[in-house]
Amino acid sequence: MSEEVKPESMSLCPVSVAATPEHELLCIFGTGDLGRSLGHRLLQAGYKVVYGSRRPHSCGPLPPGAQAMSHEVAAKSANLVFICVHREHYDFLETLAPQLMGKVLVDVSNNLKKNLYPEANAEYLQRIVPGAHVVKAFNTLSAWALQNGPSDANRQVYLCGNSAVAKQAVTESASKLGFTVLDRGSLSAARELEDFPLQLFPEWRLPIRLAIGLTAFFFFYLLIRDVVFAYVEQGKDISFRIMVSLANKVFPIVSIIMLSLCYLPGVIAAFLQLYRGTKYKRFPDWLDRWMLCRKQLGLLALAFASLHVLYTLIIPIRYHVRHWITANTISKIKENKTSEFDTTMAWRTDSYYSVGILGYGLYLLLGISSLPSVSNTLSWREFSFIQSKLGYLTLFFCTFHTYLYGWDKFLRPSYYKWYTLPGYMLSLVVPSVVLVLRLLLFLPCMDRTLTRIRQGWERSDAENDSKKSLLT
Amino acid sequence: MSEEVKPESMSLCPVSVAATPEHELLCIFGTGDLGRSLGHRLLQAGYKVVYGSRRPHSCGPLPPGAQAMSHEVAAKSANLVFICVHREHYDFLETLAPQLMGKVLVDVSNNLKKNLYPEANAEYLQRIVPGAHVVKAFNTLSAWALQNGPSDANRQVYLCGNSAVAKQAVTESASKLGFTVLDRGSLSAARELEDFPLQLFPEWRLPIRLAIGLTAFFFFYLLIRDVVFAYVEQGKDISFRIMVSLANKVFPIVSIIMLSLCYLPGVIAAFLQLYRGTKYKRFPDWLDRWMLCRKQLGLLALAFASLHVLYTLIIPIRYHVRHWITANTISKIKENKTSEFDTTMAWRTDSYYSVGILGYGLYLLLGISSLPSVSNTLSWREFSFIQSKLGYLTLFFCTFHTYLYGWDKFLRPSYYKWYTLPGYMLSLVVPSVVLVLRLLLFLPCMDRTLTRIRQGWERSDAENDSKKSLLT
Amino acid sequence: MSEEVKPESMSLCPVSVAATPEHELLCIFGTGDLGRSLGHRLLQAGYKVVYGSRRPHSCGPLPPGAQAMSHEVAAKSANLVFICVHREHYDFLETLAPQLMGKVLVDVSNNLKKNLYPEANAEYLQRIVPGAHVVKAFNTLSAWALQNGPSDANRQVYLCGNSAVAKQAVTESASKLGFTVLDRGSLSAARELEDFPLQLFPEWRLPIRLAIGLTAFFFFYLLIRDVVFAYVEQGKDISFRIMVSLANKVFPIVSIIMLSLCYLPGVIAAFLQLYRGTKYKRFPDWLDRWMLCRKQLGLLALAFASLHVLYTLIIPIRYHVRHWITANTISKIKENKTSEFDTTMAWRTDSYYSVGILGYGLYLLLGISSLPSVSNTLSWREFSFIQSKLGYLTLFFCTFHTYLYGWDKFLRPSYYKWYTLPGYMLSLVVPSVVLVLRLLLFLPCMDRTLTRIRQGWERSDAENDSKKSLLT
Repeated sequence: MSEEVKPESMSLCPVSVAATPEHELLCIFGTGDLGRSLGHRLLQAGYKVVYGSRRPHSCGPLPPGAQAMSHEVAAKSANLVFICVHREHYDFLETLAPQLMGKVLVDVSNNLKKNLYPEANAEYLQRIVPGAHVVKAFNTLSAWALQNGPSDANRQVYLCGNSAVAKQAVTESASKLGFTVLDRGSLSAARELEDFPLQLFPEWRLPIRLAIGLTAFFFFYLLIRDVVFAYVEQGKDISFRIMVSLANKVFPIVSIIMLSLCYLPGVIAAFLQLYRGTKYKRFPDWLDRWMLCRKQLGLLALAFASLHVLYTLIIPIRYHVRHWITANTISKIKENKTSEFDTTMAWRTDSYYSVGILGYGLYLLLGISSLPSVSNTLSWREFSFIQSKLGYLTLFFCTFHTYLYGWDKFLRPSYYKWYTLPGYMLSLVVPSVVLVLRLLLFLPCMDRTLTRIRQGWERSDAENDSKKSLLT
Repeated sequence: MSEEVKPESMSLCPVSVAATPEHELLCIFGTGDLGRSLGHRLLQAGYKVVYGSRRPHSCGPLPPGAQAMSHEVAAKSANLVFICVHREHYDFLETLAPQLMGKVLVDVSNNLKKNLYPEANAEYLQRIVPGAHVVKAFNTLSAWALQNGPSDANRQVYLCGNSAVAKQAVTESASKLGFTVLDRGSLSAARELEDFPLQLFPEWRLPIRLAIGLTAFFFFYLLIRDVVFAYVEQGKDISFRIMVSLANKVFPIVSIIMLSLCYLPGVIAAFLQLYRGTKYKRFPDWLDRWMLCRKQLGLLALAFASLHVLYTLIIPIRYHVRHWITANTISKIKENKTSEFDTTMAWRTDSYYSVGILGYGLYLLLGISSLPSVSNTLSWREFSFIQSKLGYLTLFFCTFHTYLYGWDKFLRPSYYKWYTLPGYMLSLVVPSVVLVLRLLLFLPCMDRTLTRIRQGWERSDAENDSKKSLLT
Repeated sequence: MSEEVKPESMSLCPVSVAATPEHELLCIFGTGDLGRSLGHRLLQAGYKVVYGSRRPHSCGPLPPGAQAMSHEVAAKSANLVFICVHREHYDFLETLAPQLMGKVLVDVSNNLKKNLYPEANAEYLQRIVPGAHVVKAFNTLSAWALQNGPSDANRQVYLCGNSAVAKQAVTESASKLGFTVLDRGSLSAARELEDFPLQLFPEWRLPIRLAIGLTAFFFFYLLIRDVVFAYVEQGKDISFRIMVSLANKVFPIVSIIMLSLCYLPGVIAAFLQLYRGTKYKRFPDWLDRWMLCRKQLGLLALAFASLHVLYTLIIPIRYHVRHWITANTISKIKENKTSEFDTTMAWRTDSYYSVGILGYGLYLLLGISSLPSVSNTLSWREFSFIQSKLGYLTLFFCTFHTYLYGWDKFLRPSYYKWYTLPGYMLSLVVPSVVLVLRLLLFLPCMDRTLTRIRQGWERSDAENDSKKSLLT
């Protein structure tokens, strides 16, 4: 055992001691764009840099102050070697294995696509140079950030590797360049790090597609019911309503449906656990995927709700509305009518607005607590209090807001144009179902069983040793 | 001394070397819910898992791929042992002390209440197995996160322990499971970590209670002054005003009072320091507690202000308002009156809105700079510039906004219904006091003395060596 | 080599072993404000504290429980020494060098100004006590935070130093006091840490000055065109418009100009790279500085846009507007006119509002993704998608919103008061230029060349080895 320790402690000292003097020497293999960008930055940070190149005398322009040498010589001169070479050209490193023995190799490579190769680039590198300490790092940064230092999305260097000492050495360099280092564990995390720069909102795709689909459906549905109907049946051109009035019907409908879709999978999962009598069976794949994008569903719902708020608030400055109010006043005077003040109407509309505002306020609270830095400061008891308790309260307020909007419209035949339901009725289906199912789960018999299941209890066959199966 | 180093370096090598091979073996004591969840996840991450159990042959369903053994055998097989057992059953570990010598024990336990036991579970564990390296970790995660990996509030693993090497080993495992690790120091921090999952917004309680109390008081106060008064004295039913008009009086009143309460303790503390002539005497407890919840007071004030903004902006689309405007126009025409345009009125109301908007803008800025990720990027000079300078500016704008709202109302007897003050006057008391006191502190004599006191100077008895007591 | 390892491992053991017992002993040099505050907090955290002082028997009040000794005795008693002394008094430490050999010295000092001394305080300390392990730490905290523990902007302890082991020891203490530690690398980072507490929004200065300049210019320009013109030419006093109407013209104008200024440098840089045929030549200094404050420009633009939104939404509750609407209705009735509903007008204004709202929504999205905690979770591909693609979309929406506002006003001579252009036309210049230039870059010939240049390709002289100069 002590035999294996030594190489570690041996490689420790040159690194940590070398950190002390002013100008540590680092080596970069590869004089391409990435190599030059990185060398530029390292020289600025006070390091000495040598390049390893196949043709050290004709390798194109290098950052001023850097030297080019053959790979062999360069490898010997430094303890830390950055491999700025495409994976396809890693072969030559195999022949350099003796010179690279005990060195820290930093693999900064990325691929053009996911799953191009069976193993991660860094793992492949470790396999062909087994004597070196491979660390995957810097690959999540853009070449711009490598050359110019940290900025916004390029502030953190993720790294992984099997040798703690090698990672410490790379951490030191990254800190010196101004980056914050996040250790992602052993080299088996390399694939994850290599996939990271390729991703473009993977967990947002499903929710965004759903939002686009719902928006398109309700847009055309309401276009036909409102604009086309008015044109065909009454001969009126009210197409100008598309820009604001129609949009302000589509947005709240999509918003409340997406908010309820964000709570539906949790309810389904609860009933599934009740039905199965255990929490240890895996959920079906579709449910798993659905549950993983709840946050994104909720945030999109919040975005649509915010648009609804803005579209509502500009109503009184619209030309159409001002014209209508003036025309209405004039016609009343001409016909010498005095409209009676309707207290019920005042109560109803004011409640409608008030509930809507409170619902939107809670919505915003859910959104704010989803910010990574805020949710990180919450214990999970606090987080689940906000997202679950306050979340259902939000859904309740918004659903109630919609019911108040509908009021007694469902009784009036004129609202069922061309035998279709008004948009707001369609939007109420899912939220109402979710709220009813959630209320069912509050029934003592349901609630008690579910709590036991979630503490690890299993029904029937495991009934006998239910006590035991709790933490022991 | 070197005697003591050895065990550390000995325990280092098995861990750090064992991290290299593909399938490191970990041990879990306890086959309850937590143990099974954790084992599930560890197996997924590529670890081999053995369970230690009292009855290895009848311990219920285990994650596929895991083995159950007796505690003794399991303990010997791995260097890292997760203790997924309730604290009440820790006794059996005492007898296993020889097998656990030099091992890393991860205490993941939580209690049902705070202060159940005189010492933290992890410290108790360390005491009964003194030869092992106890690390408190993973206890702040929900069982769901332990089984399914990091999500929102379950992204960070807090750990503490006395052995840096043991903590490094646990850090590696946690990173491999995808968590971010935060080291909270030595094992004496275990109690804090064990209390963390039990907390439910402890620092928000006082401010929330205060907000509820103020809201209730002003709601009933204004209900009586506005609605009940109109009903009793004038026989008019204007109860519909409760939903929006009344709410829109209560929210801004509570908001400005809470904002000023957020700056009052700072002013009191300054006067107390001036009076005592030293900063080294502790503040009274109530002041300390008050100062610690200033941020929460401010954020609640911001929430109320935001509601005030939304309630104000929907005014023109309210049925009541539209009806009133139409009725007003009609009555003017019938009586053939032409209302003169009042430039003073236009100046006053526009200033009122403008100051309000600017105040709310600053309010939002204070709120944004309170986000943990934003305040972390600020130096404390920047943070105190925003929170103090801009904070007082916000308070000034909001107070000025309220004075503009009042204008000359205080001169008209009709506003003192039933000999009570209008709500806005009550709301002005605290902010005005805070602003006046703050202005007093700007007086050169006050300011100079306070600055000296805050640099460590002490009055009279310490007068002679005032120079010395500054940094040296 | 092994000779050099030993001191490290020797200094390791006393620290890491000493962490285990309940009451580790720490030493503080200096009994001034900072020293007393820190000692206070260390005692609370369970440490034993001794002070080193020139006059141990008359050094003023110390925290209860702490002892004062001579520097020599105090230095010997502890492994970790906090230097709470002004840099000017560091000389005496030179004579203590033998006693401080191998100790960890924590330099917490700050200076009153930047660049007072040629080298950082911590580097100076390391130079005069070369045998000690100097760690720069705690200096970014306020004295208040040192005494009372972490809060908001005082949560993170930045540290740097050449010895990993010494840094580990300081990290332990800082964690025990409740702080989060961020390692900034070797001691050469000390200057940066010492400058940090002195900074007051350095990167915000240029954008804020620009915003103030633009606001002032457009305020006076529009004041003359609107208010002064009306007074001089028509004899009308419409000065009350300054508070809302004028502000609501200035804010959107400044907002869209600043938003476009945030994208202009990127376009200029692209054309410069195309012209030069390489990306390796440095940009001129003004362009570099401009590019570094794009985020701040964008956030200020968002703040101005938010004010524009609020000022727009309060329009219908303004006295002036209500008066005008009533007067308008009355005059229409008296003259017995009926205004025809203008569908084009309805389309135009509704589109104007709708495009504005969508633009503002995207604006907000850009702002949210600029929050440090959000941008940290994004890969740079995601971040650049939002900031670049969605950013240009935002600029397009806002510019389109302004063109819709203008509509056919540019044809009417009455809008060119005193031969000046309306404010909205001036505001359209920069955004239009940016959008046109950006469209030019989409031309295939431009786009292809630029992509190659950004991958490291260089024109003409490097043409031959263009293949080679890509990664290899």
